[in-house]
Amino acid sequence: MSTGYFFSHRHVLGIDHLSSDDIQYILDTAESFKEISARPIKKVPTLRGNTIINLFFEPSTRTRLSFEVAAKRMSADTFNISASTSSAVKGETLIDTARNIDAMHPDIIIIRHSFSGAPHMLSRHVDAAVINAGDGTHEHPSQGLLDLMTVREHKGKLHGLKIAIIGDILHSRVAHSDILGFTKMGSEVHVYGPATLLPPDLEHLGATVAPSLEEAVRDADVVMTLRIQKERQSDPLIPSFREYAQQYGVTREVADLARPDALIMHPGPINRGIELMPDVADGPRSVILEQVTNGVAVRMALLYLVMGNS
Amino acid sequence: MSTGYFFSHRHVLGIDHLSSDDIQYILDTAESFKEISARPIKKVPTLRGNTIINLFFEPSTRTRLSFEVAAKRMSADTFNISASTSSAVKGETLIDTARNIDAMHPDIIIIRHSFSGAPHMLSRHVDAAVINAGDGTHEHPSQGLLDLMTVREHKGKLHGLKIAIIGDILHSRVAHSDILGFTKMGSEVHVYGPATLLPPDLEHLGATVAPSLEEAVRDADVVMTLRIQKERQSDPLIPSFREYAQQYGVTREVADLARPDALIMHPGPINRGIELMPDVADGPRSVILEQVTNGVAVRMALLYLVMGNS
Amino acid sequence: MSTGYFFSHRHVLGIDHLSSDDIQYILDTAESFKEISARPIKKVPTLRGNTIINLFFEPSTRTRLSFEVAAKRMSADTFNISASTSSAVKGETLIDTARNIDAMHPDIIIIRHSFSGAPHMLSRHVDAAVINAGDGTHEHPSQGLLDLMTVREHKGKLHGLKIAIIGDILHSRVAHSDILGFTKMGSEVHVYGPATLLPPDLEHLGATVAPSLEEAVRDADVVMTLRIQKERQSDPLIPSFREYAQQYGVTREVADLARPDALIMHPGPINRGIELMPDVADGPRSVILEQVTNGVAVRMALLYLVMGNS
Repeated sequence: MSTGYFFSHRHVLGIDHLSSDDIQYILDTAESFKEISARPIKKVPTLRGNTIINLFFEPSTRTRLSFEVAAKRMSADTFNISASTSSAVKGETLIDTARNIDAMHPDIIIIRHSFSGAPHMLSRHVDAAVINAGDGTHEHPSQGLLDLMTVREHKGKLHGLKIAIIGDILHSRVAHSDILGFTKMGSEVHVYGPATLLPPDLEHLGATVAPSLEEAVRDADVVMTLRIQKERQSDPLIPSFREYAQQYGVTREVADLARPDALIMHPGPINRGIELMPDVADGPRSVILEQVTNGVAVRMALLYLVMGNS
Repeated sequence: MSTGYFFSHRHVLGIDHLSSDDIQYILDTAESFKEISARPIKKVPTLRGNTIINLFFEPSTRTRLSFEVAAKRMSADTFNISASTSSAVKGETLIDTARNIDAMHPDIIIIRHSFSGAPHMLSRHVDAAVINAGDGTHEHPSQGLLDLMTVREHKGKLHGLKIAIIGDILHSRVAHSDILGFTKMGSEVHVYGPATLLPPDLEHLGATVAPSLEEAVRDADVVMTLRIQKERQSDPLIPSFREYAQQYGVTREVADLARPDALIMHPGPINRGIELMPDVADGPRSVILEQVTNGVAVRMALLYLVMGNS
Repeated sequence: MSTGYFFSHRHVLGIDHLSSDDIQYILDTAESFKEISARPIKKVPTLRGNTIINLFFEPSTRTRLSFEVAAKRMSADTFNISASTSSAVKGETLIDTARNIDAMHPDIIIIRHSFSGAPHMLSRHVDAAVINAGDGTHEHPSQGLLDLMTVREHKGKLHGLKIAIIGDILHSRVAHSDILGFTKMGSEVHVYGPATLLPPDLEHLGATVAPSLEEAVRDADVVMTLRIQKERQSDPLIPSFREYAQQYGVTREVADLARPDALIMHPGPINRGIELMPDVADGPRSVILEQVTNGVAVRMALLYLVMGNS
């Protein structure tokens, strides 16, 4: 890069900490790594001999797998630790667990934790680079970045777009990272969802609360629906699934209010027929599986970039 | 091979789909790979840079381990997903889970699932090659193939043999794959077990229901006992273990009715003293551990052959 | 080594089986491997193509991770089997499980099991080398060796030292291995803990039971505190945590009774404020995290040495 840009972050804790230049650079790097996954031999020696630890205190298939795939395609050695088998059950503090792992000289610790801020705390106590793979209701930066990458690939830009985000914003770290990312890059984010599931600081984050589902989606370039978390169904804040589907579910009629070339996105896993109707999820404008593909490329880029600063 | 034979399957879903030429070719390939596991350096670069995913919706030690050993000895990158940590708990459909995994560009997905037909459904929705590692009560083709390999090694042929299979045929995907495999190769399969545990379509599959344990085993070249599934003990169809051992357990006296050079086989894990008596399981004619060894070789062959068609 | 020493063990089952020459040699080897973990590329090809299986029947983060890190830094292929997913749930015997795994030709099986003696039994039934990663209340030899390594690094010797071990000796396989190791190397071990948690054979092992916490620690070169196992809190033998902390917890005042250059050690995970006060755990004389770092080096040495004899 002749622009003199230098990615200077030791850790990736949130979109909040990244500048628009950082984001641009990460996406450029991810794009250059993307073709590795399409090769017959999907592997480069870039991170050979590096130790990368997936420290997951919440269950996860896709994010853990995506990071592990990314790491192995860079030839790193990967290690999975899940909460159920960890010392957490023996009453050790998170910091002690992290410092113990760190004493084995990992290069990168990828952490998912139900407490917002856990990765930030960790980063102050370990020598390894820390990547946030989702912390509480706070941030999920690699998901935000893969969403940005997918939109940029299709739209050729990230500024001047209207992004609609529909659903449970309050509990969604994905929504939080997306709002930060898209507004940083110069797009407008319009959110809509049950009033009980909209956090109070949305305007502060730069998002606009739409007066209706229709207004949120109208002329949008991107319609992103969020997962209604089934495990929260007993929460009195959350409407029944039937009600939710009727009032907040994105049907083809709703999706047709967006621009004709609008992208349909979802962070997965989808509750088909609740927040997103199957014909929309599987329709020609859906880029949901491309999001997953780009997730591997973004994570390869993040692993590569933080290793360059350690 | 100068015969012009070509292994043309993209997926390995069941013995049902394989011709006798296919089976012969898989076993020949497995034999040529077998010595790799006996080397000091048990590794060849054949599948370097390939991504192989073990997607297991039922717990498994030996099958998962055997596939993982096979994959790593071919230098592939392997990833384990087990049901307990998967998105299944979040209500995602199997097809969505599979398509998401597929979007990360794996080369092969090895699936075990409690629903018969799950691998077949998967194979219609993913680009990766699919290998069935056991689906419900339907098939377990790699187990069937390793049984065939073990018998062929000892008998020098797979035609004209009498194979006795004793136990719970109804719930056994191993029995199903074995019956299909041995009859395809020109051997006779005689089955015996509790009447409630014999499926109605046995004759259709080409097996003969023996009138007694003794008749099933008499002059057999192979005596294969099946695991009585302890977790099904509360099922009223299943006799008590004491009764089972008395009426269906293979003792030395029973085993002696077979040919003097008959092989004793079991797919494991063994319930010692129930379906198979310890002196028979550990006796000189037992090839139970050779089955396990051949399992790695057969799985190396399957990974290799499906990769050749992708 | 010009001394003509040769490490002759096929298995590492306990410190009990090792001579002081063996221990010296293992520690020398571990020291030579330690710098590998400090390199940018933390990997040597020494065990390339070797198959190493972690067979853990008890949950573990750090020991399993430490062995896996050690193995991958030697370029071995590693496989994790945990009890919850193993055939143990299907009623298979430990020996059958082990022989089945062995039939896949692993080079090394690392086993943790809640039954004392399980690794010894295993070693008589498999071709693979067996390393004990903790068996019941019996031994945890790699932990004992890493403790010896850490003390030797700091003290320059292992003879003539006073080692204080404080806590629940009865249930601690670490204490058992440490007592054997330090006394073999010519140091004195003084133990102290609740009378109900001191096993009867301590003097036979070569340890001295101190009359008080103060006498155990006074002029010690090493103060090692043991984890009070929270999961045993309902055991009537064990005092309440509050009582325990008051009577047996190592505070700064207690630690100051030891020699000014005394090392503070703990096998982890620490119950902060119970057996060890935070200011001592994190103080300048604490080598607790060095223990973890040395654990990787010791385990690399053990894997290397047993492979040399297979």
